[in-house]
Amino acid sequence: MQPNRFPTTVYLSAPEMIRLVQRKGLSACIAGIADRISREFLRWNEFDKSARVACHSDVGVIELMPIADAKQFTFKYVNGHPSNHRQGLPTVMAFGVLADVDTGALRLLSELTLTTAIRTAAMSAVAARTLARPQSRIMALIGNGAQSEFQAIAFRDLVGIRELRLFDTDSAASAKLAANLVDQDLEVHVCQSTAEAVRGADIVTTVTADKTNATILTAEMIEPGMHINAVGGDCPGKTELAAGVLEKASVFVEFEPQSRIEGEIQQMPAEFAVTEFWQVLAGKRAGRVSTSEVTVFDSVGFALEDFAALAFMRDTAAEFGLGEIIELVPQANDPKNLFGVLGGRPSLVPISKISTHLVHP
Amino acid sequence: MQPNRFPTTVYLSAPEMIRLVQRKGLSACIAGIADRISREFLRWNEFDKSARVACHSDVGVIELMPIADAKQFTFKYVNGHPSNHRQGLPTVMAFGVLADVDTGALRLLSELTLTTAIRTAAMSAVAARTLARPQSRIMALIGNGAQSEFQAIAFRDLVGIRELRLFDTDSAASAKLAANLVDQDLEVHVCQSTAEAVRGADIVTTVTADKTNATILTAEMIEPGMHINAVGGDCPGKTELAAGVLEKASVFVEFEPQSRIEGEIQQMPAEFAVTEFWQVLAGKRAGRVSTSEVTVFDSVGFALEDFAALAFMRDTAAEFGLGEIIELVPQANDPKNLFGVLGGRPSLVPISKISTHLVHP
Repeated sequence: MQPNRFPTTVYLSAPEMIRLVQRKGLSACIAGIADRISREFLRWNEFDKSARVACHSDVGVIELMPIADAKQFTFKYVNGHPSNHRQGLPTVMAFGVLADVDTGALRLLSELTLTTAIRTAAMSAVAARTLARPQSRIMALIGNGAQSEFQAIAFRDLVGIRELRLFDTDSAASAKLAANLVDQDLEVHVCQSTAEAVRGADIVTTVTADKTNATILTAEMIEPGMHINAVGGDCPGKTELAAGVLEKASVFVEFEPQSRIEGEIQQMPAEFAVTEFWQVLAGKRAGRVSTSEVTVFDSVGFALEDFAALAFMRDTAAEFGLGEIIELVPQANDPKNLFGVLGGRPSLVPISKISTHLVHP
Repeated sequence: MQPNRFPTTVYLSAPEMIRLVQRKGLSACIAGIADRISREFLRWNEFDKSARVACHSDVGVIELMPIADAKQFTFKYVNGHPSNHRQGLPTVMAFGVLADVDTGALRLLSELTLTTAIRTAAMSAVAARTLARPQSRIMALIGNGAQSEFQAIAFRDLVGIRELRLFDTDSAASAKLAANLVDQDLEVHVCQSTAEAVRGADIVTTVTADKTNATILTAEMIEPGMHINAVGGDCPGKTELAAGVLEKASVFVEFEPQSRIEGEIQQMPAEFAVTEFWQVLAGKRAGRVSTSEVTVFDSVGFALEDFAALAFMRDTAAEFGLGEIIELVPQANDPKNLFGVLGGRPSLVPISKISTHLVHP
């Protein structure tokens, strides 16, 4: 009998995660996850990586995103259903798990809907502070849905963005974003078109939701030196940039095998050159090479970002004593006696009660 | 404001699942899941199937097993760590999720450790009642760990097994199994070797845990007409049967692309003939063709079995009012205002407070 031998599983529900982010502060969460992402990307070759597993339907996609290093395994469940808002549901809903590689024991089960918005913004900002021109101050933000506030705050905090130019085909979404950013120390302008928002911007973030080959940005809109943070094109048949934008840019991706399938570069031939962003962070490949170069971060969301986010949330939950312990696995006294949890006979009965005679004497 | 528009997520913890199985009865759970498995296997071509995603380490494996039809998506997280029992932990721990394909909404989050033992036994029995000789009454059960009681009861209930011959290299495991089966209306003999247990058996079930190319059964042990239910060989480098056993048998598998990687047939050349079991159920391919034929069900565990089990557990939980509703996803009033859950400004502010002047007039 070792009643406490089971590693505990901490559960962070959505309400508990909201408390966590409120207690820690959104900016501190973004900064903390950005820091972890940077550190994990520098350990790139220590991870067992695979392209995520996607289940597509006409109206959306459900994905599983696993990754592991020698100690921890994580995965995220995440959907993408652009029409969900018509039923009052989020486009993206997610949760994830962190487990021990050496036993498979589940250590954290956490909401990742809110966390995905935070980690995506953190990843975007980490890429932009490396790839965009220094002193970038103006960002166009195309797509003003659930993720847009997080992008705005991450770019303010980590990149130094001071002015935002918003556009969304749903003007109510832009109004919502602008309202949420009042008192956030950002100059915010709602624009009437993508072209208007993009004109003169240092950075262009596209974070739209339609599962179509959309053309949010065309080559004519792109000015020398711009950095494009392309977030919303993230599965087969879902892109935001015209091929001409990619042709005139240096393109950086997270994990190339996944991005070839899901990213903006799904439009391009297999030999179209891209750079994995971790190589820039590690000093192995060049990032931006001139102030006039156009850079694109073709972000699709990679499991390593969730690995970093889950570890951050685990540690922050411990810091504040948040989360509850759940029993997701039956804790049998004898691991070989799973049947015993059903309340059958005790495992140890006198050996005399057991027939042990040989069948074939 | 539609406070109840969110589809509820039901959580079945391990203790709650134990209550569910106690209330419904283990035999009724096995029979119910066996019935669902049979029905789902007949809808084989309606499922979006993929080989599971595995993360291997020196000491074990962690796998994700997704599957979907047009309406429901499920996946299972499951580990396999044969040395876990030394730390008092189960070899296999699992949980799973059932979600709506049309929105991605999570409907059930459930323990699947206990459930996996039940569904594996149900699958084994469904295959055996189709492939074994009619009137099979004696089963050898090699490997007497966590899953063995469930196999014993499933074969008693669904196949008509009346006599069990047990063997395990850990004699305490056999004693535990024999003790658990007292009063289960089975004649139980503990044997001193695999060969002794197998001799004269109608069915041989192997459900050992070692992650090695073990040789639990050799060709000499196999008698004409036997059915072999090979459960424990289920990942690369983890097999239980000598190749000679497979060579003299007709081999049936769940999902061929997965079984080629993980099953006993990983030992055989790619052209080694196998039959997907669903084709036998559907009358498309022959099962056993003579009483002297040796049949092997090379079971590795397929996501469709968990799909069936999760649906059964969801319905049974509803029948008994078990499970609790959890908030794994933040329920924002406006799905485009995820930021609002953090308690920032309300989504709807007077439009006059928002700067909407054109940037480039």
